[in-house]
Amino acid sequence: MTGALYVIGVGPGDPELLTLKAVRLLKEAPCICVPKGREEGSSLALSIVEKAVDLKGKEIIEAHFPMRKTKLQGHAEELDAKWQGTVDVVSKKLLSGVNMVFITIGDPTFYSTFFYLYDKLLELIPLLNIEFVPGISSINASASRAKLCLALADEKIAVLPATYTDGIRETLEKFDTVVLMKVHRVFFLVRELLGDMGLLDKAHYIVRAGMADERIFDDLRTVKEEDLNYFSLIVVKK
Amino acid sequence: MTGALYVIGVGPGDPELLTLKAVRLLKEAPCICVPKGREEGSSLALSIVEKAVDLKGKEIIEAHFPMRKTKLQGHAEELDAKWQGTVDVVSKKLLSGVNMVFITIGDPTFYSTFFYLYDKLLELIPLLNIEFVPGISSINASASRAKLCLALADEKIAVLPATYTDGIRETLEKFDTVVLMKVHRVFFLVRELLGDMGLLDKAHYIVRAGMADERIFDDLRTVKEEDLNYFSLIVVKK
Repeated sequence: MTGALYVIGVGPGDPELLTLKAVRLLKEAPCICVPKGREEGSSLALSIVEKAVDLKGKEIIEAHFPMRKTKLQGHAEELDAKWQGTVDVVSKKLLSGVNMVFITIGDPTFYSTFFYLYDKLLELIPLLNIEFVPGISSINASASRAKLCLALADEKIAVLPATYTDGIRETLEKFDTVVLMKVHRVFFLVRELLGDMGLLDKAHYIVRAGMADERIFDDLRTVKEEDLNYFSLIVVKK
Repeated sequence: MTGALYVIGVGPGDPELLTLKAVRLLKEAPCICVPKGREEGSSLALSIVEKAVDLKGKEIIEAHFPMRKTKLQGHAEELDAKWQGTVDVVSKKLLSGVNMVFITIGDPTFYSTFFYLYDKLLELIPLLNIEFVPGISSINASASRAKLCLALADEKIAVLPATYTDGIRETLEKFDTVVLMKVHRVFFLVRELLGDMGLLDKAHYIVRAGMADERIFDDLRTVKEEDLNYFSLIVVKK
């Protein structure tokens, strides 16, 4: 029997935002696959889980996922090799009958790198026994921390990464709520645009929602270079 | 001392999708305020919580929230009266020093009626001690159950209620992923539009994600009138 693979969202950082199901599956799993942003760094997802579940005696497999590069930026081959290494290890385990958990920050369906692996795993194990367990996404966590209503009744929400995406202005014009992800590298450009559009008083900048060093800016004018962080987003609520 | 108000998302239906924080606060709270869709009906949010937490000895306050009417549809006065009744009860409790939990299906910041009450509560208690606790939203739960990636890398997501909103076609053209909420009343119109746009093979219909009677349709052509449900959405992933 091939083992089951549970892809679990562990939420944005606060270990109390793990679901009961995530905790149960983590306790039951003999083997946990853990993504790491850099090879030398530690896994944020693992550090969240460790605070809620005793991992003693479990096998931990680390998988290197470079966060700052994507296929679009011309590192496709290098990335494919990294992912293939993880696919090989995970598929071998599953085929030997071991159940596994793959943990991912936030929610697994929402900008999670696991999906880069999914197709490759299906190639090797067409009848893959896989279950996705949703987690609290950064958007929901950030809105809660900032006491913001993302949408009510007939309102429309757009979510877009600010780094690569054109058309931010048009989206801001047409949607009631716009969530700008991955905003830390273009923060000051976005702030200028929001100022031009008269939306600066409608914008909130939430940094590391639910983590110990969380910060919430209800006035973007007060944000400085040193306040910017990879784990941050802007919510514009008109 | 005024009591604290915790507004807690209890997730989409599976009691195992409650967070550890939600369970802890529910256990600690002497008084729970529970929304009900219809006065005669039972509360779905309460039925989820009851399966995970022993509520014996706790005071349960029921609040009537008509789900099918909104301010836009000309029932503003009737609704305001209903909400004001709940506001009066909740504010009286809080002012007497009792801590309260208000439970809401899914996530409190995401199409949750609690925000209709929020401003009124702030009017009565300007220094309201309130905390929002995020829950698994229907979108994340549905995507997990259907094994769908909502977005990766630079992809853009739009979320819009299909009932009132114009411009669905334009949104489908411009976004990588479109989530159509509240789709049950216009399902066949939406299906026709998706057919016209050649997107029928990119669409998934998820009904009651995470509940015992969940259904997932990866081919919208097979959906019949009797399959439609209030708790359902369409994900179009191009």
